Amino acid sequence: MRAVGRVTVRDRVLRIRDGAVGERVDTLVAEEPMEIRLNGRPLTITMRTPGHDFDLAAGFLVGEGVASAADDVRAVRYCAGATEDGSNTFNVVDVGLAPGVPVPETSLERNFYTTSSCGLCGKASLDAVRLQARWDVADDPVRVSTATLSALPDALRGEQKVFDRTGGLHAAGLFDAQGAPLVVREDVGRHNAVDKAVGWALREGALPLGGTVLALSGRASFELVQKAWMAGIPVITAVSAPSSLAVELAREAGITLVGFLRGTSMNVYSATHRVVLPGD
Amino acid sequence: MRAVGRVTVRDRVLRIRDGAVGERVDTLVAEEPMEIRLNGRPLTITMRTPGHDFDLAAGFLVGEGVASAADDVRAVRYCAGATEDGSNTFNVVDVGLAPGVPVPETSLERNFYTTSSCGLCGKASLDAVRLQARWDVADDPVRVSTATLSALPDALRGEQKVFDRTGGLHAAGLFDAQGAPLVVREDVGRHNAVDKAVGWALREGALPLGGTVLALSGRASFELVQKAWMAGIPVITAVSAPSSLAVELAREAGITLVGFLRGTSMNVYSATHRVVLPGD
Repeated sequence: MRAVGRVTVRDRVLRIRDGAVGERVDTLVAEEPMEIRLNGRPLTITMRTPGHDFDLAAGFLVGEGVASAADDVRAVRYCAGATEDGSNTFNVVDVGLAPGVPVPETSLERNFYTTSSCGLCGKASLDAVRLQARWDVADDPVRVSTATLSALPDALRGEQKVFDRTGGLHAAGLFDAQGAPLVVREDVGRHNAVDKAVGWALREGALPLGGTVLALSGRASFELVQKAWMAGIPVITAVSAPSSLAVELAREAGITLVGFLRGTSMNVYSATHRVVLPGD
Repeated sequence: MRAVGRVTVRDRVLRIRDGAVGERVDTLVAEEPMEIRLNGRPLTITMRTPGHDFDLAAGFLVGEGVASAADDVRAVRYCAGATEDGSNTFNVVDVGLAPGVPVPETSLERNFYTTSSCGLCGKASLDAVRLQARWDVADDPVRVSTATLSALPDALRGEQKVFDRTGGLHAAGLFDAQGAPLVVREDVGRHNAVDKAVGWALREGALPLGGTVLALSGRASFELVQKAWMAGIPVITAVSAPSSLAVELAREAGITLVGFLRGTSMNVYSATHRVVLPGD
């Protein structure tokens, strides 16, 4: 295998097409483990696509309620010496919190379960999420037209640099209420893509993300709605289905959740008042 | 919302279709947290679709190297009294290991990160996985024709009871070398679907799963290849792309990894000798 930058890898593969067999060079999306440390202490490991690693670490901490403003983070850096020979793998990221920002207790560490598609894990129940949310998303006055919503999947896909080469990436994008993109991030893990977008916003000083739309390339799960809530995002769109718990949490939070967004068709599962309907 | 059994939920939704707006009843796939306990001790929490919970717990332990034979597990049960009022939520499953089966050390507990799509997490590196694998999959003599492989996605889809109603589920199926299904499981989480299939096999006394094919409805990640290896599965097929690390691990294990399996087309990334080509 040959790394091309760090986001994709080129490799020889046996290709079978309608009975014809041949070798060709294929582009694979890169997947590597990344350890997130908090003030030097190992916190979690996630499987991710390298790139925007600092955003990923920052966004993960937003989702966990540890950081909510750019000033909460003093420094983010790669840890050298993570391997036995002391080299820098660029797979270990340490986040230093600013003085005065509460560090989660050691006893809570094992609650920080995470992975390429997780955020909830280890939180004892929905109640913990409700308590942690810092923003009142329900009162966000933003409204978005069905025409703007319908354009988001293509806009998201248009910003996906890596997908066209590999077919293997999830995407999450932040858009304004007129459908203009603020940021789009890709990753092998759906939750990482959201963390990268939210982490970008944290570092830009843009939290809470009032008036914005989070567009997802796939399904909407409980954990993704939770991440949106923790970032103050009032509208979520997904190309595929939401889960029952995603809908429940969106209603609880007052987040507008749109699913099966395909062409001019969509289902609106919660806070429907934010969608400007064709006849309005 | 109204629960229908526990796998799906029916709910009212605002539906927009080409400018027409109306309310309709929609079926959502259920998503609920499940805590897995080992000998009474909390081990991990995963977001999953209720159903086949005992298989999920058993399969998770296979992937972590804790269990590898039906006899390793003494009992699996739902914990009553998991809530404050002492009721049984059917969201807490306790696995009792048989006497003599090593229980992971307490200090390892926080390595058991998991979620609706995780298995690796917390393992320090690929080396840990290599050490844990109990089966020599590389020597499995099974061969599978491209015709059999091409039929797997439709066979998998045909066994998906819930997907057609919700559009929101991943599937994992075990098939024999002639393409006959052994078991198919669905879940909101891709890794849970694999755990449920492998856990079924453990409880049936069918490990290692020599001569079988694991068919996946989506992508092939590192963690899914790891789970297959831990169960002794020699062939994996995926409808979508594999990641770079999935291919690396499949080569290391000697597992045949087929991706982009669509119609009569596919890419074979590793251990290509097991695929009987059209001209053979």
